[in-house]
Amino acid sequence: MASKGLAIIAGVGPGTGASIARRFAKLYSVVLLSRTPSNFEPLVQEINSSGGKAIGISTDVSDANSVKSAFDEIEKQFPDSPLAASIFNPAGGFVRKPFLELTDEEYSTALDSQAKGAFYFAQRSLPLLLKAKESSPHPPTLIFTGATASIKGSAQFAAFASGKFALRALAQSLAREFGPQGIHVSHAIIDGIIDIPRTKQWVLPHEDAKLSPDSIADSYWYLHTQPRTTFAFELDLRPYIEKW
Amino acid sequence: MASKGLAIIAGVGPGTGASIARRFAKLYSVVLLSRTPSNFEPLVQEINSSGGKAIGISTDVSDANSVKSAFDEIEKQFPDSPLAASIFNPAGGFVRKPFLELTDEEYSTALDSQAKGAFYFAQRSLPLLLKAKESSPHPPTLIFTGATASIKGSAQFAAFASGKFALRALAQSLAREFGPQGIHVSHAIIDGIIDIPRTKQWVLPHEDAKLSPDSIADSYWYLHTQPRTTFAFELDLRPYIEKW
Amino acid sequence: MASKGLAIIAGVGPGTGASIARRFAKLYSVVLLSRTPSNFEPLVQEINSSGGKAIGISTDVSDANSVKSAFDEIEKQFPDSPLAASIFNPAGGFVRKPFLELTDEEYSTALDSQAKGAFYFAQRSLPLLLKAKESSPHPPTLIFTGATASIKGSAQFAAFASGKFALRALAQSLAREFGPQGIHVSHAIIDGIIDIPRTKQWVLPHEDAKLSPDSIADSYWYLHTQPRTTFAFELDLRPYIEKW
Amino acid sequence: MASKGLAIIAGVGPGTGASIARRFAKLYSVVLLSRTPSNFEPLVQEINSSGGKAIGISTDVSDANSVKSAFDEIEKQFPDSPLAASIFNPAGGFVRKPFLELTDEEYSTALDSQAKGAFYFAQRSLPLLLKAKESSPHPPTLIFTGATASIKGSAQFAAFASGKFALRALAQSLAREFGPQGIHVSHAIIDGIIDIPRTKQWVLPHEDAKLSPDSIADSYWYLHTQPRTTFAFELDLRPYIEKW
Repeated sequence: MASKGLAIIAGVGPGTGASIARRFAKLYSVVLLSRTPSNFEPLVQEINSSGGKAIGISTDVSDANSVKSAFDEIEKQFPDSPLAASIFNPAGGFVRKPFLELTDEEYSTALDSQAKGAFYFAQRSLPLLLKAKESSPHPPTLIFTGATASIKGSAQFAAFASGKFALRALAQSLAREFGPQGIHVSHAIIDGIIDIPRTKQWVLPHEDAKLSPDSIADSYWYLHTQPRTTFAFELDLRPYIEKW
Repeated sequence: MASKGLAIIAGVGPGTGASIARRFAKLYSVVLLSRTPSNFEPLVQEINSSGGKAIGISTDVSDANSVKSAFDEIEKQFPDSPLAASIFNPAGGFVRKPFLELTDEEYSTALDSQAKGAFYFAQRSLPLLLKAKESSPHPPTLIFTGATASIKGSAQFAAFASGKFALRALAQSLAREFGPQGIHVSHAIIDGIIDIPRTKQWVLPHEDAKLSPDSIADSYWYLHTQPRTTFAFELDLRPYIEKW
Repeated sequence: MASKGLAIIAGVGPGTGASIARRFAKLYSVVLLSRTPSNFEPLVQEINSSGGKAIGISTDVSDANSVKSAFDEIEKQFPDSPLAASIFNPAGGFVRKPFLELTDEEYSTALDSQAKGAFYFAQRSLPLLLKAKESSPHPPTLIFTGATASIKGSAQFAAFASGKFALRALAQSLAREFGPQGIHVSHAIIDGIIDIPRTKQWVLPHEDAKLSPDSIADSYWYLHTQPRTTFAFELDLRPYIEKW
Repeated sequence: MASKGLAIIAGVGPGTGASIARRFAKLYSVVLLSRTPSNFEPLVQEINSSGGKAIGISTDVSDANSVKSAFDEIEKQFPDSPLAASIFNPAGGFVRKPFLELTDEEYSTALDSQAKGAFYFAQRSLPLLLKAKESSPHPPTLIFTGATASIKGSAQFAAFASGKFALRALAQSLAREFGPQGIHVSHAIIDGIIDIPRTKQWVLPHEDAKLSPDSIADSYWYLHTQPRTTFAFELDLRPYIEKW
């Protein structure tokens, strides 16, 4: 398989990030960013050994210098690959506790992981996406992963909701600025429990009550393949059984 | 091609409805509802002559009896076909004028075409969709077409926005009631000018500045194929250049 | 007390409407519209006997002719009073039941009571409000009463939510068209149980867990007294204990 | 005038903050927080010389230690005054520029001024507000000042919108957690240009086209005086002529 370009996925654990990587690796070389190499190493191996092309770079997206190093490395390793898709799928900053028990650090971490991380990631991705406009097989795409907390500030979610609201603001602003330049910026609201190793033991009363990471990845792929006449900015994904 | 089930599309003119019909006709027999037979006749012929199966029924969706007759006819003609998708894509009720110049009839027509039409259509579709749960190749799906006016009541759009807001309320309520029963209910916000014969003469300053009906149809098809673990309720579609 | 103008309240039962009438009667002559005269008769008497001025007119707001008659009567009885405030506070159309059990009539009634009633009421109120711009002590005001169902289409609320969404669309559109003409158009989302005779027997686990009709009326009065430099369009009112 | 309690206003320049301070000083002792003493000194003098009681404390709300010192000082100076109202009205973080020209520092400053500042301020205010439940003349109140950018991420507003979205998330979360404990948490969306010294030279085509700071202050006071049966969470304030 000849790679048609590059996809960067920030936030790759055993769940959604991995499924997105596998999906985009069918057409593109993929770069996996995660703080912990053990998060991406098996996946890099899996993709490379099944005919795709993947590398992993240990990156802390909430650290400007770490993001800078990662993108410098990407541009060095893939000087001629158009960046077709850049996906921000961060895990950090989740915390649920009474507001008066939240520490400064917990609140800051939520903002840093979600909002500042997305800012650094977008600032390095967008010039590459703009450069790829003619050569990418589909409109160059920047997708942000949101959550229920992106649109509702529930009790005890002050930190996480602040980070996720800020991330959605960033996504909207970028869609309005870079959409007219041909970049597809999208925000997906993942509303429910994702079916990943960590949630396996949560037994729910109904079948299929958790979001499938592969189906989330299909939705991201679908967004990526939309033509510029018909861009979706936002979609909300949830299991059929979810209350909302 | 052996049909795998049935799709009903209400509101079929030369634009989105026709594209949706063509897209769903690749897998399903399609029933096209429109007040004016000339709206669906060429399309019925086109689909039938290219290996698909289509019928058209002259129907006024804002009239309970007309909807009843149409569904009675559908059940008679397709007694054994599971209803895989039912799509409400009405055109009626659009009017833009100063509020004090709106007539009672214009305001009523907007509510009748959008909200009441959708009510009648959903009440007849849902029992068939529920019955198709085991036999439909994808989760039985009910999609409503919205517009910018579904989420913003602009000046001079009192009538149309009332109809479209009401339609969205209906869609949300049905998603919450029938989602847990395995029916995928979705609402698409079409935000921009659609590229159809009627809008051909509107020359816009940018290329690709109108929504492609075929791409809208692809999005509806994508919604239909989502598994029940990962249903999208709402997505907004607009040209890359659109202000929002 | 010399009346400084006129206030019309549509939808006057023993709850919010009565409190609004009492509040606005402190400065204005008030006209109370309700289908059932027994709804406004005691209140008319109460206001008149305590130094205010009130009349009641039996009106079905969902009937164009009935609204026409009411306004003709108002203009005859108060030819020189500027219309300072017009408040649409309808009760009709509430129904909660499984969608497939909803009758056509129930769905239509919700649209008629809320959306069409508001349309008729606004069309007759706005010319009078515009005429009152110089003479009304506060910016002429048109307020619509919303509910939780104005912004959320819950399961089993398809009819009521359709009506309330449509009403909110109308309010937004009118605010955008008539705000720049100096008319203050507002929409209040009443989110919770109102403390009225009918709900007295509902015992809640916390004190003060129901909305006070007098406090709702105070909020409407507050909206009315805002200067045109600083109009609020929407506010949401709920008991401190309410989940949202 | 005997003070009935205490009000703290963070973010006091010559505009809204000053009007809020004057309004709340009619009933309460007021504490004015601003980084620059020259922002609050004339106001402190004005309030004290007209029969009120005011102090100013030089505070950087985006700095945890600075907020800590300020509240320590407040508790020392007013050990027996119930905290009736705490108002977060920050000015920092506004920046409008193409995304790729935004500096890390500008993006961080927006989050720090709005979200982290509000976090520090709320964490120190809430214990005092809770303690004041029995003694405050009105339900203890925590109000946050939002902007258009609180609900819309416009092009070139990525930083400011991120901060304001995050602030709104925080406000929602606190309203849901502390409302049931009797604290009134509100968020005001100020949508338009405020009529302050800095904006005097902006001549608009219509009279009264800027928000009056005194009227904003009246709205905040109105929120503060609502009983717990009927709390408003959010209201949007704009000049009658504003496009939205």
